[in-house]
Amino acid sequence: MGKALIIGCGGVASVAIHKCCQNSEVFEEICIASRTVSKCDELKEKLQGGKTKISTAKVDADNVDELIALINDFKPDVVLNLALPYQDLTIMDACLATKTNYVDTANYEPLDTAKFEYKWQWAYQDKFKEAGITALLGSGFDPGVTGVFSAYAMKHYFDEIHEIDILDCNGGDHGYPFATNFNPEINIREVTANGSYWENGEWIETEPMEIKRVYDFPEVGTKDMYLLHHEELESLALNIKGIKRIRFFMTFGQSYLTHLKCLENVGMTSIEPIEFEGKQIVPLQFLKAVLPDPASLGPRTVGKTNIGCIFKGIKDGEPKTYYVYNVCDHQESYREVGSQAISYTTGVPAMIGAMMLMTGTWKGEGVFNIEQFDPDPFMEALNKWGLPWKEDFNPELVD
Amino acid sequence: MGKALIIGCGGVASVAIHKCCQNSEVFEEICIASRTVSKCDELKEKLQGGKTKISTAKVDADNVDELIALINDFKPDVVLNLALPYQDLTIMDACLATKTNYVDTANYEPLDTAKFEYKWQWAYQDKFKEAGITALLGSGFDPGVTGVFSAYAMKHYFDEIHEIDILDCNGGDHGYPFATNFNPEINIREVTANGSYWENGEWIETEPMEIKRVYDFPEVGTKDMYLLHHEELESLALNIKGIKRIRFFMTFGQSYLTHLKCLENVGMTSIEPIEFEGKQIVPLQFLKAVLPDPASLGPRTVGKTNIGCIFKGIKDGEPKTYYVYNVCDHQESYREVGSQAISYTTGVPAMIGAMMLMTGTWKGEGVFNIEQFDPDPFMEALNKWGLPWKEDFNPELVD
Repeated sequence: MGKALIIGCGGVASVAIHKCCQNSEVFEEICIASRTVSKCDELKEKLQGGKTKISTAKVDADNVDELIALINDFKPDVVLNLALPYQDLTIMDACLATKTNYVDTANYEPLDTAKFEYKWQWAYQDKFKEAGITALLGSGFDPGVTGVFSAYAMKHYFDEIHEIDILDCNGGDHGYPFATNFNPEINIREVTANGSYWENGEWIETEPMEIKRVYDFPEVGTKDMYLLHHEELESLALNIKGIKRIRFFMTFGQSYLTHLKCLENVGMTSIEPIEFEGKQIVPLQFLKAVLPDPASLGPRTVGKTNIGCIFKGIKDGEPKTYYVYNVCDHQESYREVGSQAISYTTGVPAMIGAMMLMTGTWKGEGVFNIEQFDPDPFMEALNKWGLPWKEDFNPELVD
Repeated sequence: MGKALIIGCGGVASVAIHKCCQNSEVFEEICIASRTVSKCDELKEKLQGGKTKISTAKVDADNVDELIALINDFKPDVVLNLALPYQDLTIMDACLATKTNYVDTANYEPLDTAKFEYKWQWAYQDKFKEAGITALLGSGFDPGVTGVFSAYAMKHYFDEIHEIDILDCNGGDHGYPFATNFNPEINIREVTANGSYWENGEWIETEPMEIKRVYDFPEVGTKDMYLLHHEELESLALNIKGIKRIRFFMTFGQSYLTHLKCLENVGMTSIEPIEFEGKQIVPLQFLKAVLPDPASLGPRTVGKTNIGCIFKGIKDGEPKTYYVYNVCDHQESYREVGSQAISYTTGVPAMIGAMMLMTGTWKGEGVFNIEQFDPDPFMEALNKWGLPWKEDFNPELVD
């Protein structure tokens, strides 16, 4: 059917590329591009021989001119951005210049702040409209599938949704006393930041890990979970009309939190450099160097993730609740695509988002969050491509 | 009465020097020598004006010739070694060459192992005998006062001592979630090492922190304590005839242990260098750089230490128990000499040990552990010089 340019070659990109190759009717041709072309070549080596034609390219995603040249050369139908969030804007600029559709999984974040917000990307709305092209923002799991779940609930089950709780549970065990599932620097900065949630039209800020709940997750079991800020809260608060409260909870084990607290107490998570043997060293960066490489966790992680949304609202004048979630097994993911469930649950929706635009199933001129499109074809695709979902109309609720 | 050369100018040395200056009848003249002569000059500045005459000198305690030249120049009656344990042997060599009495507080430890043993210093026995001079090893608190306590118990209260438990409790609070009372590198190496104790003629080795007991310390309260190896076990096992078991316990708070465990788990206490930004860095040394400087704890530490020995044995055919201990207050020590109780309890016995040789109260040719001399004058001096002791003939026993 068409061609996709995939920028980035980390864990999530690897899953998305595996999935594109499984879906060669849509992805007839892909180009994998990153700063380190050898990683792209390695992946091509592994996956070529199927029906999808694979090429690779070297590109600096911070450089708009390089990106434009690559797009003009390859002429993709969609650019799927799986690089770092710092590079969203340069890639969007290149898509504008070449009138090419754009998809990403995580919103833009300036390098020098820990704060992620949609405002920078939403500012491209008029330009994408004028260019007659589509930008689909946040097509991972959370954000991504959580927005699709919300649109689906709204379309089929509710007249009004009043409350959404997004629950992200990782019941996996990698056997280390402490390790992070992705870049420790970004992970630790996120977890030690203040939390926040949306209630009655405004943001309520909390201390880091201030709000804790215990939840019994289907197929995983009872876990402690903590309220965090998360980017989809921002778009759902705008796009789900009549919403009164949206919260996001993520599970953390006691051992993870104890280690994190101790490391914080002694100053090892600080981003202020200290003088050491005549050199300025950031303690958090040194810590990252002693911790296990997240890429090494894949083969040793067992257990499942469970990510979903609980909705409370009104249907035909009656109160109603609805819980929709996906359960993903770390070892099954690893066997299928060589990555555990954390990358798998983000990489699969990235492929599906690109497919929605490639096939013309989703159309629109401008910048869109995922819940603004018809959820049904995406929900079908989740079942087909490895992230089947389940429903519960009488779920345990979160206080 | 005489002259003492004091080598070293750290926390313990500072206390011993304060105490020598309080005891000017014995210490008419002292010379403070270390690699960093400015620290010696600072202390001299602070303490001069009393009756003890103070001079300072620069010396590299690793260099025997420099030490000999200094001793020949100053002509002390005793050399009090309060430098690093790595330097015991060079200082003993210089004492031999100049026929000068020698006192230290901690036994020799080669730089490249974590194992401290008396064998290197005991090997000097014949040389000191031939030279007609005295070496007094381990005149701190533990080792030191614990050996004096043992000799005192044997002399006055027992026909046979079968068991000794040495209990070292620091009930002080410095208000940090984690900090070490002395060099973090040495402290952490000691605490993460295997434990051991002496029983029925042999050493029993344990995992680090494997054996835990709870004890209600007089004037401090109930604390968790853990069995560690400690150097005086080695000499007491030889010098207390008929002894069946000797153990050493030290208190650690749960917060200290949790932090230590977490730091160990993530690899921050490792002494294996890792590659970081093109440089080899030892994680434990980097950790030391982020932790509070032990010298900064003095003014903020409140609470007391309680260090003592519990003896079980036989007197006149009847079973008997005896507990003798000292309680030392961190803030009182700080007010008196500008150091908290950890340094105070080691520095005072160092001065007393030197005094025992200067006054000729203790005499002998060769290398001696402290329990080999008459304990009575040392016990009197403890009461006089700031470390009064208390007795209990019906103490709580340790399982």
